[in-house]
Amino acid sequence: MTTPHPLDDTIALQWQPDGTATGRYPDHYWNMIGPFGGATAALMLNAVVSHPARLGEPISLTVNYAGPVAPGPFTVVARAVRTNRSTQHWFVELQHPAADGGEPSVSTTATVVTASRRPTWGASDAPMPAVADADAVPRARRPVQVPWLDRYEFRPIHGDIPATWDGSGEHSLSQLWMRDDPPRPLDFCGLAALCDVFFPRVWLRRAHRVPAGTVSMTVYFHADGRLLRTCGTDCVLGEARAQAFRHGFFDQSGLLWNRQGMLLASTHQIVYYKE
Amino acid sequence: MTTPHPLDDTIALQWQPDGTATGRYPDHYWNMIGPFGGATAALMLNAVVSHPARLGEPISLTVNYAGPVAPGPFTVVARAVRTNRSTQHWFVELQHPAADGGEPSVSTTATVVTASRRPTWGASDAPMPAVADADAVPRARRPVQVPWLDRYEFRPIHGDIPATWDGSGEHSLSQLWMRDDPPRPLDFCGLAALCDVFFPRVWLRRAHRVPAGTVSMTVYFHADGRLLRTCGTDCVLGEARAQAFRHGFFDQSGLLWNRQGMLLASTHQIVYYKE
Repeated sequence: MTTPHPLDDTIALQWQPDGTATGRYPDHYWNMIGPFGGATAALMLNAVVSHPARLGEPISLTVNYAGPVAPGPFTVVARAVRTNRSTQHWFVELQHPAADGGEPSVSTTATVVTASRRPTWGASDAPMPAVADADAVPRARRPVQVPWLDRYEFRPIHGDIPATWDGSGEHSLSQLWMRDDPPRPLDFCGLAALCDVFFPRVWLRRAHRVPAGTVSMTVYFHADGRLLRTCGTDCVLGEARAQAFRHGFFDQSGLLWNRQGMLLASTHQIVYYKE
Repeated sequence: MTTPHPLDDTIALQWQPDGTATGRYPDHYWNMIGPFGGATAALMLNAVVSHPARLGEPISLTVNYAGPVAPGPFTVVARAVRTNRSTQHWFVELQHPAADGGEPSVSTTATVVTASRRPTWGASDAPMPAVADADAVPRARRPVQVPWLDRYEFRPIHGDIPATWDGSGEHSLSQLWMRDDPPRPLDFCGLAALCDVFFPRVWLRRAHRVPAGTVSMTVYFHADGRLLRTCGTDCVLGEARAQAFRHGFFDQSGLLWNRQGMLLASTHQIVYYKE
């Protein structure tokens, strides 16, 4: 018996006769007070990707982080709200049993669009920035404070997490090569998780560490399954920046390319921050 | 009795004893084969904003256009999936009665996050571009093909809809001043609708008109209600561009500023296109 990859272990679902799926959060991707949001995004997407009624491939994913994800058992309810000829719309809820046996609480919701893709005219207006090759960028080695940081290989090029929190920040742009550790062949769930690895832009912009957490994240998949399979376990280039910080919330936009410069996904999130 | 603004007439809801709301689509915002998607976004948001249990102001809105919106009566079901101390997470469905009396069909879903906002450190890293003032830019006067185009005043600065469809397109950037016609004081619903006024980027990028339609749109509100009230009926500057076109889908990102240069919203969408 082979040991599953930590991400596959985290997003594994047991389908039940009533059409729901159950699972249990292991601690591979634990963050400070709950799991890394990207692992939860992968879990929500997996409830659709692995659903017996799913048609087509993911086009769009929005994950809303509504409350803390409790450790232990959970139920995922994925419902095809509408199925068209070539697109399908899903609503997904992550539910946790109540300690007192009452109504389960919902920690996370998601909407997913899947579709059959066809060859069309195409163009990319978001070229990969000219950066050093992944092999030429040293891997960041920092004292691991939380388990999920150990689940990724980060090779920061620009805008790494500040070394000193001295309030000297001037921009919010980060560029880095990244991949799963241990390596894992890229797929839609792995890509969704990668879209959330960027540390909060407010930390970089201020060089000041404040409590922050993603409230809602959207991923648009430009890659289809065929392109993802060609990526294998190779590094992906990620870039993220913020646009506005105001009254406790900022937005953050990111792009992810494969090593050959093909845009794989664009991603956006709105993030809560304190102070 | 005063006549309501066409947008208010479109998003008007009658709350029912069972907690759902009913309405009826007038034709003020009709597009070619259904209503303008921005009007539907405003309707979905209004089901939360006007909900008796709503706490706080909108932070995030994702609208999924799952199927055609039928003319005539509809029901909106808005459910607070989770209510926290300072945030609330909503799921909204737009339902249309079946002709045969069977199960209603769902044309649109949405998730909304509302929150209490607090003063914090802030910064804007998306400054308004230097453009001509709204008064100096002539209003676009084109033969109106569909009713919704008459519901807005557009003053295009850059990247207007191509005058000739000759395949000469080179970029996807549009900048324009815009506001409701007749004028309407800006609020969250009006702003959500404005986020969808940009014509499909694929038309500009190719100077070639192909069938296209929004599949999912997300709006992050940087403005709070107080800032929106100061905008009144003044013009808003909008900017939109695409990032990648591939296999029948492209993504489009937009920013909206008030005349004083304050960022009001950032918005993203994934759009289906043919050919």
